[in-house]
Amino acid sequence: MSEIVIMKELLGENKKIAEEMRSFYRERGVLMVNIMGAPGAGKTTLLKALIAELDRRGVNTSVIEGDLYSSIDADYFNEKGIKASQINTCGECHLDAAVIREGFDKAAIDHGICFVENVGNLICPAEFDLGDDLRIVCASVPEGDDKTYKYIPMFSYVDAVVLTKCDLKEAVGFDTPYFTKGLRALSEAPVFEVSLNKTGEEEGIPALADYIQGKFNEL
Amino acid sequence: MSEIVIMKELLGENKKIAEEMRSFYRERGVLMVNIMGAPGAGKTTLLKALIAELDRRGVNTSVIEGDLYSSIDADYFNEKGIKASQINTCGECHLDAAVIREGFDKAAIDHGICFVENVGNLICPAEFDLGDDLRIVCASVPEGDDKTYKYIPMFSYVDAVVLTKCDLKEAVGFDTPYFTKGLRALSEAPVFEVSLNKTGEEEGIPALADYIQGKFNEL
Repeated sequence: MSEIVIMKELLGENKKIAEEMRSFYRERGVLMVNIMGAPGAGKTTLLKALIAELDRRGVNTSVIEGDLYSSIDADYFNEKGIKASQINTCGECHLDAAVIREGFDKAAIDHGICFVENVGNLICPAEFDLGDDLRIVCASVPEGDDKTYKYIPMFSYVDAVVLTKCDLKEAVGFDTPYFTKGLRALSEAPVFEVSLNKTGEEEGIPALADYIQGKFNEL
Repeated sequence: MSEIVIMKELLGENKKIAEEMRSFYRERGVLMVNIMGAPGAGKTTLLKALIAELDRRGVNTSVIEGDLYSSIDADYFNEKGIKASQINTCGECHLDAAVIREGFDKAAIDHGICFVENVGNLICPAEFDLGDDLRIVCASVPEGDDKTYKYIPMFSYVDAVVLTKCDLKEAVGFDTPYFTKGLRALSEAPVFEVSLNKTGEEEGIPALADYIQGKFNEL
């Protein structure tokens, strides 16, 4: 049996579960936001800042954290009083719709915005529908301005792109129009530029929070 | 049939081919070097500098480039007079031993050091033996110092780690001892620190070239 045939079967099965789950989450007034990106793109740092901002606005949030083995990230959110569960994929390269439902139940998530932090991978997660309403890709400036030309499936099926670590643009010679040109060949997704450096300076979070909150209000 | 069973079958089949190919390459006096890393870790930039350095030393080199769709990288090397072939995985997240043999034949590679640039992915390529002699992982400083704690299979089965974009250490607050501590829990692989920025400044390439050339001489 070829690898491609097996893949198609797995994807078909996942798609069916995802469609059911999407209705299930919507009925409960939960907007599911799938955050994807390469290792080190800044997904966790973004989530921390975004959830703090939405919390200040009185919006209910929760987190399902995907990781190969560790549970460092869910622990952080639980300590902050945010409902969070950890999914360890035990080496698997993506999350799927069934496993998200488990994480959802485990954290007893109800009304609000639920963020799913996908495994750090710009390839496999693109193909697995999680029953989400919003697909966001984080791309970091130091990864380079050619990523929209190389990781085509990921940048094709995306609702919004967050360009992270924008404070490093000059240091690495990042060409923003070139990056955007690659994206525009695949998608009309809006691009949000953010910087969140270790000294605590933040830029771009309110605009991104507005966008996600707007999608939640439309639910 | 579960995804895990299918994966085990695929890996078993690949391992068999890889063992045969390893003998095949060695008999021809070719050291196969598998370069892995996340998207934007700097694999291509590293290869360009490394091949230029080995070329100056009179060492014969060649390249098999893995990418989802494009052929930008192989074109660059061919223009420089380096034997290079491109493998497009058409969306697949890893290379395997059979496809590497095809790339090897296509570029008519003979005696010397053959670099395989794997698909940008810190997960799936860890499990696929390519019939290589040397497995090198590129990790970039802006990806963060926690990667050795999160991508355990990749950093477990590695012969050497190249820490790229070291000129950004201060800008991103990278903690080198923390990164190395995570690696040491998994592997005794040496770490080579390099910087290759757009203004043409290079640091760390000669030491890495010495290491790879040494492995070639032992073949």
